[in-house]
Amino acid sequence: MSKEIALIEALRALALHPAARGLADDCAVLPFGGETLVLTHDMMVEGVHWLPGQDMADVAWKLVATNLSDLAAKGAEPVGVLVGYTLGDEDARFVDGLGDALQAFAVPLLGGDTVSANGPRSLGLTALGRATCAPVPGRNGAKPGDTLWLTGPVGAAMMGFEALRDGTGADSAAFRRPTPRLAEGRALAPVTTAMMDVSDGLLIDAARMAQASGVCLAITSEAVPFPPAMPSSRQDEAMRWGDDYELLFTLSPGITPPVAAHCIGRAQAPTSSSVVVDGAVPHGKLGYMHD
Amino acid sequence: MSKEIALIEALRALALHPAARGLADDCAVLPFGGETLVLTHDMMVEGVHWLPGQDMADVAWKLVATNLSDLAAKGAEPVGVLVGYTLGDEDARFVDGLGDALQAFAVPLLGGDTVSANGPRSLGLTALGRATCAPVPGRNGAKPGDTLWLTGPVGAAMMGFEALRDGTGADSAAFRRPTPRLAEGRALAPVTTAMMDVSDGLLIDAARMAQASGVCLAITSEAVPFPPAMPSSRQDEAMRWGDDYELLFTLSPGITPPVAAHCIGRAQAPTSSSVVVDGAVPHGKLGYMHD
Repeated sequence: MSKEIALIEALRALALHPAARGLADDCAVLPFGGETLVLTHDMMVEGVHWLPGQDMADVAWKLVATNLSDLAAKGAEPVGVLVGYTLGDEDARFVDGLGDALQAFAVPLLGGDTVSANGPRSLGLTALGRATCAPVPGRNGAKPGDTLWLTGPVGAAMMGFEALRDGTGADSAAFRRPTPRLAEGRALAPVTTAMMDVSDGLLIDAARMAQASGVCLAITSEAVPFPPAMPSSRQDEAMRWGDDYELLFTLSPGITPPVAAHCIGRAQAPTSSSVVVDGAVPHGKLGYMHD
Repeated sequence: MSKEIALIEALRALALHPAARGLADDCAVLPFGGETLVLTHDMMVEGVHWLPGQDMADVAWKLVATNLSDLAAKGAEPVGVLVGYTLGDEDARFVDGLGDALQAFAVPLLGGDTVSANGPRSLGLTALGRATCAPVPGRNGAKPGDTLWLTGPVGAAMMGFEALRDGTGADSAAFRRPTPRLAEGRALAPVTTAMMDVSDGLLIDAARMAQASGVCLAITSEAVPFPPAMPSSRQDEAMRWGDDYELLFTLSPGITPPVAAHCIGRAQAPTSSSVVVDGAVPHGKLGYMHD
């Protein structure tokens, strides 16, 4: 058990509220004022979640986008964000990027805090949303026989990261400025049996959905969408890389998704492996492991 | 204009929602469903907000308490918190202190995030509350003629900090484990004309209330409560030290507070100074200035 998992287990033991089901990897969902609040808080750390020297405008965008992606996976409509910001050299760029993201996704800044600190900078963002359907989709509702879907390609962020890191001049937008699938999430929420965003890698996130649901998710690799510019030799890697923020979801047999999506597999009765690819158990690291 | 103030102004310019009035120094207040949400997010940084080597259980307590104090100043009932935590050497102590505080204030942990990072650790906490009266008190409603009140002593945290720093063995609980005045805030909210917590120092927080309200707040120093153990020579310093988390509020003339409190002065027509003490303009730094 990693140090982070141990801490999360300890924190979960403190949780006095059923909404805390989602600690550290999912949203909190709780009734408020006759409606349902959906809440998430993610942090980003310099040198861990962004490249040293990266444009702080892109970092701000990603901080907003990744949290809104968590709301998208719940079919929630964003209500606003609170930001925790460590002052640094490129504050104006941070504000520019934050403004770009808030405008692009029509989300207001509600408040936050700024601090001074030495060393690597930490950022935090809390996103607040309003559920648009009941029950709010979880990652635990997939049933054997359900079809498994993905809203878009995996691997685009990996290609963008490498373009940025190596200064190749190739398009890096998928890594720098991901788009949370908010409209897709809202359209899908009423019909999915389970839904989550792919943030840590398709295989590991599928394994998490499978474990939460008590099924095995069987993926057909040739059905998985990849970006056109990516060499086919990198498909296995792309399924483990993460940062793509597409939605992964399951539908009952015979149901067609109301948005463009790719059917990449099926849920089966549980086996000793949470996920299989082309009938085989994938070896090695399935994705980004928090540690 | 300090770097932080400049950033806050830039962030405020982004704010598309009137609830963002409180960016960086006040709560966001917004309707949700048929009720009113009150939200705050504060960060703490190692070496800035806590002493190196300080017990992480106390740090966790203070992280919760300071955010709940912001809710108390709005008369809000806490609904839950989300925590952003940087992993370190004393994670179990952090969890212990977090549990202590959540239990003491009967607040659930709703979610959050954990990250690994090198260098000084950053913590963030978002507290979510439910308004218990309308309108929710602000810091901008004091009128000339109103009386000015404080729920308890200032200087206790200063004495506690010094006891801890110097290892004197004297009681340091006021610094380590402050108590948000939640019940007092709820009782006061319907009757106050303005309210806020004293987190950065009585004089600077009074000046902020005065500026927001367009009045001058005249404080009578002999009416200000101080802890019994504090030498009277340190009264001026205690009014500038902060970290006491008592509530500062104004009442219309003739109104008596529904909780124990000390009348420490009066609001007057605005003058060139936001705050006067015993009729004189206080010189020097009024309190903790964010920079």
